[in-house]
Amino acid sequence: MKNIAIIGASGYTGAQITALIDNDTSLSIQGLYVSENSLDKGKALAELYPAYQQIKLSLSPLTADAKQSIVEEADGVVLATDHAVSLELAAYFYKQGLAVFDLSGAYRFADIEQYPKWYGFEHTQQDVLAEAVYGLAEWNHQQIAGSKMIAVPGCYPTASLTALKPLTPYLTDAYPVINAVSGVTGAGRKAQLHTSFCEVSLTPYGVLGHRHQPEIATHLGQEVIFTPHLGNFKRGILATITVQLAKGTTEADIAKAYQVYNDSPLVSVLQNQFPKVDDVVNTPNCIVGWKYDSQSNYLVVASAIDNLMKGAASQGLQCIKIHFGL
Amino acid sequence: MKNIAIIGASGYTGAQITALIDNDTSLSIQGLYVSENSLDKGKALAELYPAYQQIKLSLSPLTADAKQSIVEEADGVVLATDHAVSLELAAYFYKQGLAVFDLSGAYRFADIEQYPKWYGFEHTQQDVLAEAVYGLAEWNHQQIAGSKMIAVPGCYPTASLTALKPLTPYLTDAYPVINAVSGVTGAGRKAQLHTSFCEVSLTPYGVLGHRHQPEIATHLGQEVIFTPHLGNFKRGILATITVQLAKGTTEADIAKAYQVYNDSPLVSVLQNQFPKVDDVVNTPNCIVGWKYDSQSNYLVVASAIDNLMKGAASQGLQCIKIHFGL
Amino acid sequence: MKNIAIIGASGYTGAQITALIDNDTSLSIQGLYVSENSLDKGKALAELYPAYQQIKLSLSPLTADAKQSIVEEADGVVLATDHAVSLELAAYFYKQGLAVFDLSGAYRFADIEQYPKWYGFEHTQQDVLAEAVYGLAEWNHQQIAGSKMIAVPGCYPTASLTALKPLTPYLTDAYPVINAVSGVTGAGRKAQLHTSFCEVSLTPYGVLGHRHQPEIATHLGQEVIFTPHLGNFKRGILATITVQLAKGTTEADIAKAYQVYNDSPLVSVLQNQFPKVDDVVNTPNCIVGWKYDSQSNYLVVASAIDNLMKGAASQGLQCIKIHFGL
Amino acid sequence: MKNIAIIGASGYTGAQITALIDNDTSLSIQGLYVSENSLDKGKALAELYPAYQQIKLSLSPLTADAKQSIVEEADGVVLATDHAVSLELAAYFYKQGLAVFDLSGAYRFADIEQYPKWYGFEHTQQDVLAEAVYGLAEWNHQQIAGSKMIAVPGCYPTASLTALKPLTPYLTDAYPVINAVSGVTGAGRKAQLHTSFCEVSLTPYGVLGHRHQPEIATHLGQEVIFTPHLGNFKRGILATITVQLAKGTTEADIAKAYQVYNDSPLVSVLQNQFPKVDDVVNTPNCIVGWKYDSQSNYLVVASAIDNLMKGAASQGLQCIKIHFGL
Repeated sequence: MKNIAIIGASGYTGAQITALIDNDTSLSIQGLYVSENSLDKGKALAELYPAYQQIKLSLSPLTADAKQSIVEEADGVVLATDHAVSLELAAYFYKQGLAVFDLSGAYRFADIEQYPKWYGFEHTQQDVLAEAVYGLAEWNHQQIAGSKMIAVPGCYPTASLTALKPLTPYLTDAYPVINAVSGVTGAGRKAQLHTSFCEVSLTPYGVLGHRHQPEIATHLGQEVIFTPHLGNFKRGILATITVQLAKGTTEADIAKAYQVYNDSPLVSVLQNQFPKVDDVVNTPNCIVGWKYDSQSNYLVVASAIDNLMKGAASQGLQCIKIHFGL
Repeated sequence: MKNIAIIGASGYTGAQITALIDNDTSLSIQGLYVSENSLDKGKALAELYPAYQQIKLSLSPLTADAKQSIVEEADGVVLATDHAVSLELAAYFYKQGLAVFDLSGAYRFADIEQYPKWYGFEHTQQDVLAEAVYGLAEWNHQQIAGSKMIAVPGCYPTASLTALKPLTPYLTDAYPVINAVSGVTGAGRKAQLHTSFCEVSLTPYGVLGHRHQPEIATHLGQEVIFTPHLGNFKRGILATITVQLAKGTTEADIAKAYQVYNDSPLVSVLQNQFPKVDDVVNTPNCIVGWKYDSQSNYLVVASAIDNLMKGAASQGLQCIKIHFGL
Repeated sequence: MKNIAIIGASGYTGAQITALIDNDTSLSIQGLYVSENSLDKGKALAELYPAYQQIKLSLSPLTADAKQSIVEEADGVVLATDHAVSLELAAYFYKQGLAVFDLSGAYRFADIEQYPKWYGFEHTQQDVLAEAVYGLAEWNHQQIAGSKMIAVPGCYPTASLTALKPLTPYLTDAYPVINAVSGVTGAGRKAQLHTSFCEVSLTPYGVLGHRHQPEIATHLGQEVIFTPHLGNFKRGILATITVQLAKGTTEADIAKAYQVYNDSPLVSVLQNQFPKVDDVVNTPNCIVGWKYDSQSNYLVVASAIDNLMKGAASQGLQCIKIHFGL
Repeated sequence: MKNIAIIGASGYTGAQITALIDNDTSLSIQGLYVSENSLDKGKALAELYPAYQQIKLSLSPLTADAKQSIVEEADGVVLATDHAVSLELAAYFYKQGLAVFDLSGAYRFADIEQYPKWYGFEHTQQDVLAEAVYGLAEWNHQQIAGSKMIAVPGCYPTASLTALKPLTPYLTDAYPVINAVSGVTGAGRKAQLHTSFCEVSLTPYGVLGHRHQPEIATHLGQEVIFTPHLGNFKRGILATITVQLAKGTTEADIAKAYQVYNDSPLVSVLQNQFPKVDDVVNTPNCIVGWKYDSQSNYLVVASAIDNLMKGAASQGLQCIKIHFGL
């Protein structure tokens, strides 16, 4: 039984991973925390999320005392906090010897020079960053088991990399074109005009400049064009990827490449069939569907995940269980 | 050709009535105005509402000079402003001789003592209030034609009163029970957590305490139970009303009572059929459907309108055209 | 470990209870069945419902041999079949000694004369009907434990009765008015024009004539006005109930009455707060919120459940576990 | 005043163009027609579409007599019929001298050999096909004015071609990648399982094999990869297009290319801003937004239209008005 503290538990991702850990018999929850300034401190989680009424836990402010208790009592800490907040908290807890599972983007790039451009801050924790591993659960099992600093991937990169990584032998210098649509929970729980009910309608955003583009490119080892969209649904992501593969690539090559997931119960691969977003919502699964035109060498592959689950919380849980060998 | 100034044109209701007036060949737009403090001042309306790109008008701040121009140039002024703002602006323009069409609640009660309780302010304009008429277009034609101070009804009251007023001869002291569901535009354009896309889901609000309850009761002349709900759609209202009518009331009595709308092109009445919200969205229509059980004397009547149209802007336009005889 | 056969597993309710039973360590699944004529026979459940890919079961045709195997192997049978189909199957399996959990309406009325009117058939199984109990889990624990013929309640009755039954001491001859809105899954999985995506929009149906009205009235012991609506969401029900209680009823009386649920973990009662549909979707919970006006004695109480869960499958599971003492 | 007959008026597209023509003072409606076998024959249009209650027209069966009346009375005929039905009707009315505005795909390819592959029939009207012009209103004004056989473009091609045609000087042999999402009305009004409310969720379909791919390619003069998706909304299309332009292409080149629409009031082009689907729903507009990376020469351009309006009915109306010089 490992004991986990969850910081930033009032947000959509934090609440989701709380529910998953609460439901896992090999894990216990040391505590739920929010910022000392949060209006939600002291509230029951179920007050914010009535759907989780079976969870009888409240949100504590992350005071100095609270941090001390976490260090003394917890085996691991989940950070469902803003990037800049995670940057410091991750280093703090890592240095105290805890395993850190960071759901933010603060430790996803190995190259420290990327942070100012994509996250707007200088990365001040070079030594911790050097130890960080990328928690793409189906691919980096050994690193996740071996490091105490785990950067859980972003939602779009998880969907995209799951579809594309098996194909690396067949990629050329033609950029894969990734069009992805995310549910609105991806924008977080804060009230904003563009995520108001009446304003939401399918639209691209972050075109040719979204921070998940370099995250995908870095962990794929290949430039991509990535165009995210806001969709009019609450949860889920569908990434539709078009890529021209190397001449001579056959349908059989692709089918074989995707066999890499044969022993991964959470990833399903379909040929000539395609997932719907709702096929994965509220599940930890990724469903990949593909079709190939061997004449033009164009492949279209679609990848669906729940952005709050496989794209954040349930992948975080995978990392926790891999790391602790549960 | 009458010239109309529209104040509060950046909100959902103000933008909607702008589009209607812009499209009406008997009316012209003197100008569109927002508060001097508004972040939207100076912007083109089409920047906020790309769907209205054929409208080449911008939002001017309502300065003292602007008010002077309105007085000099406009025949009427539409107030799509907050209740407390309308309170003062309506009186100002009314006293300058303009016809005022107020879409807020600031002049809907004749009884001045209702305002502190339901709107949170003392009504400071008793003399103007005394001249105000209630702009329920199908019922108060003569008053609308005869007064320059027109309080355009609320959305829920329009739906409810259209269904109930014909039945007054058959009402008893049994309270009609009004359950109504509104689209989220009814909550206005401001970013708020409870109207964020991810938070919206059918729920009651304002139970046994919504300010539209006394508005309905006053203009019906009968107490009612009114329970509004927020629905997961953008526009439209459905009010489902259950009422036990006086003993002896027949189906024929009811059918005859609803013939009052035979010459009202915007109101359709169906027996034993019921409207859907989308049957009226983006239209100025009200569709009423009813069914009666003559054994128990219970009537169920449903009334559907577009909250931004018949519930605000298009009824405002009706009032303008009635008032000016267009 | 009890072994359960599920008949009608291809529909929304059948698939949902399959997922619940599959996930319950005290139960096993004897088999999933569909009609011999079903186009889905032989298919994997996960082909119809990709969200359930962890369930590696297929849909078998309910042949004579299959029925024989069920009798030999299963302890209980779940019927997620049409009313007329359940009528015969329930009697067959009941007489073979199995516990029958019928999610249809075929055994919900004790009064055999109700069936032709509300279900369109003569009830041919009077002896089995005499043994049937109504599976309202929080209320009829003892009967569910003691009978092998359990009629699991309808979705609307579950929401309505959970809210109203505690209040029976305070009801008078004033009819409670129940306005309820159901997600579209309530209409089943068959393609129909009125449940096509483009046609769905909030609307009443079955006004003054829905078969759940007498089901509620019978099990409440009081006539009600029940008006169901189709809502533009997939899952969930919100029932908003208005009722004038007996003179002298106090807020404290009501609060005390609802304490009947203090030991029912799946029912939560809130005063002066109201549930949203999404607070219960995908959960087995019922959330009840109420507000009372002690001057007029009017109570408004709203009850939210997931129509496929507490309104069918998860209540079915409650019945199974109560019956078998698991 | 030109008199127009509308055949197939019971479908979403036919009803929409009926509403547009009914509202146009330069046009009159000769009649609304449905197939002789249609269950809707004899019904009022407003019975099927209550939102159009101001239209007092009924659906007549297209008998031999009806066809004769059309020939005698109408100046033009709109075909909102299935491809195979349009094939014959278009030829019939064309040969009788009427102007034919065909909203189906039966006359969109000049190359007669495409029809068996993409539409499943041999094209039997080679002589009429030879006269057909493609009704892309902003591009083919002269042809539309000059021919009586006008094939109104498909919805996806309209969105795609409006975005891509100005760029032809900068295209290379790199295929533009078109990812498009359509509202469910695009699938028509027939009840089908995959367009049932509960089944709809964002998903690709017709991958590497949709008949709009060759329509786009033919009228662009360049192969494309086209991946359509079904979205969870009723109306609208968003096409997001990624294309690598010729080396040396500058931002200024692109801006200048899009000036081709400066005099087209229905097409708006935005740089570094992107449309939402709801910006165009219920309008005849196309909004195009683009962003260019001059280092990699990749352009992302998104194009939004209402599939039933600019994607069918309102473009049909444009064609009618261009053709008749109204």
